[in-house]
Amino acid sequence: MSEAGRQQGVSIAVVGATGAVGEVLFEVLEERGFPASEIRPLASKRSAGRKIRIGGVEREVLEARPEAFEGVDIVFFAATGALSRDLAPEAVARGAIVIDKSNTWRMDDSVPLVVPEVNAFALDTHQGIIASPNCTTVGVVMALEPIRRRAGLRSVVVTTLQAASGAGRPGVEELVRQRADRAAGIEPKAEVFATPLAGNVVPLCEDLLVNGYSTEELKLVNETRKILGLPNLPVSVTCVRVPVEVGHSATLLVEPEVEIPVVDVMTAMSAFPGVVLTHDRGSSRFPTPFDVAGSDQVWVGRVRKDLGSDRLWLWEVSDNLRKGAATNAVQIAEALLERKLLLKPGAV
Amino acid sequence: MSEAGRQQGVSIAVVGATGAVGEVLFEVLEERGFPASEIRPLASKRSAGRKIRIGGVEREVLEARPEAFEGVDIVFFAATGALSRDLAPEAVARGAIVIDKSNTWRMDDSVPLVVPEVNAFALDTHQGIIASPNCTTVGVVMALEPIRRRAGLRSVVVTTLQAASGAGRPGVEELVRQRADRAAGIEPKAEVFATPLAGNVVPLCEDLLVNGYSTEELKLVNETRKILGLPNLPVSVTCVRVPVEVGHSATLLVEPEVEIPVVDVMTAMSAFPGVVLTHDRGSSRFPTPFDVAGSDQVWVGRVRKDLGSDRLWLWEVSDNLRKGAATNAVQIAEALLERKLLLKPGAV
Repeated sequence: MSEAGRQQGVSIAVVGATGAVGEVLFEVLEERGFPASEIRPLASKRSAGRKIRIGGVEREVLEARPEAFEGVDIVFFAATGALSRDLAPEAVARGAIVIDKSNTWRMDDSVPLVVPEVNAFALDTHQGIIASPNCTTVGVVMALEPIRRRAGLRSVVVTTLQAASGAGRPGVEELVRQRADRAAGIEPKAEVFATPLAGNVVPLCEDLLVNGYSTEELKLVNETRKILGLPNLPVSVTCVRVPVEVGHSATLLVEPEVEIPVVDVMTAMSAFPGVVLTHDRGSSRFPTPFDVAGSDQVWVGRVRKDLGSDRLWLWEVSDNLRKGAATNAVQIAEALLERKLLLKPGAV
Repeated sequence: MSEAGRQQGVSIAVVGATGAVGEVLFEVLEERGFPASEIRPLASKRSAGRKIRIGGVEREVLEARPEAFEGVDIVFFAATGALSRDLAPEAVARGAIVIDKSNTWRMDDSVPLVVPEVNAFALDTHQGIIASPNCTTVGVVMALEPIRRRAGLRSVVVTTLQAASGAGRPGVEELVRQRADRAAGIEPKAEVFATPLAGNVVPLCEDLLVNGYSTEELKLVNETRKILGLPNLPVSVTCVRVPVEVGHSATLLVEPEVEIPVVDVMTAMSAFPGVVLTHDRGSSRFPTPFDVAGSDQVWVGRVRKDLGSDRLWLWEVSDNLRKGAATNAVQIAEALLERKLLLKPGAV
């Protein structure tokens, strides 16, 4: 933590304070002892006025309007893309740095897209707005980066198994409601998801485009390339929704540029900050969403060579609300302090 | 149906009559109007004596012993591999043809491994025992064969999402029990699966070998190669268990030998017997396990070109108890009749 941050404290605002990610963000800030001097819970007009608890204290959520950012050092946006688009420039104009969880700014060339363990250096070029990736992308790039550093990357094939909470609190509520309906013999309704998810798997996350890809799949391709600094990396992907509350999983078939023994992959994974590698052989230990929910780490298991090629299979799981969202955003804020990118006037 | 079969009727025995696949097998035989003159329900000593209903009539399950096969034309084995290993040769020695659902005989060079729409011709070389593939393999080869015929196959990458019933009735019962436990706040127990499956996904089907692969994954690789007649086809695979009762799904990334437009893939799929292709663009229609359970077809959707290569993505779902097991076995019996491979003395 920078001395500036430690001594003066950082004034924080959170837009989307009443959402699933917002709730976890307050927890993570507290757990990690982030040096906040002030936390302003903000939300859209619709949710403003609600009461929430932050660190055991009841707080009223205020409307996210331009004036609400006056005097704030860091604004976390964990709300809709529309809110980010309208309000992030307003926050920057008032001297704040924005850490945005929405899709709005991620592919903007002037906006760093950051997973701190992978590319914290990208923060140095920020112009006020910093993007945190899609929750699925975070786990995937964390699992790929140790291989990229050791042996390069030629291509990757990904199938994701994504939790209901990737669609926020309404997604989890719908899954729970559908389960109860099915148990009671009632035909479940689907509103958040394309078709009922309870007791089912659904091969569509977000919206289907005319090219046959979902918006989620294209995000994963484009964001992975940007974060890894490999703009032409072939990323082949199918995203599937599974009836899990929290924890996105993925199978990855990774083609390195040079051949690499499995033991070296495992060593590189184990040594990489933020990754927990499970060693399944002889133990049958591997990560699952249920085991990994609540963890800030990205878990990797089932590492093995492809049969008949030099490619590598991995299984990756991470908590999409924590490392996939809130934790990564807070780590970006910590990295800003560490890199002295959030100096107050007169400090240093 | 052959005249021989139609006129005289076929005497049938089912080993594993009390299991999940056995139950569906009786339904499928009746639904398809299979010309059975007699059906003998058999099971291991442990299950013998139980009463089951076949076509509305209560029947006692007899012990599967060598003498039980006397006078039988076709014996379906839908039980443990050990029972198949011990008893299939006894049935053949008594003049019956065995259609075996277990893993025991599938990779035996003298045993045809058959999905009738794909390789019914392989039946002509049978020596008494015919193997029906693993439930996951059936759906995968049905989705691959239309592409193989049109454009050849250079490689395939598969991630499966497999239902609890792939582990039989105990698998479904465990999933249902775990769901109830979790809803009641009780820590669920895992016996059939490696770790609790309710609200979770588990990256292991069957047993983990020292090479890092599961037995299920190796079955899928070897059986796919044998059925398609491509002994060196690179098949890269990860098998995952999902909290679904019935219906195995898979994502497939298929590399054809020659480039093929998506519309030609869709046409080839649509024209292939036993495959239902959904056209998602503009309709957002795609198959899910819940929709497909109870169907005898293999459903394919989300057909699209890989981004930046000539490979093709597919999503495939089929009912693992029906087309993945019982229906495929009955179709093998039908093909034997059609191909006049089950002629009674004096018939033709």
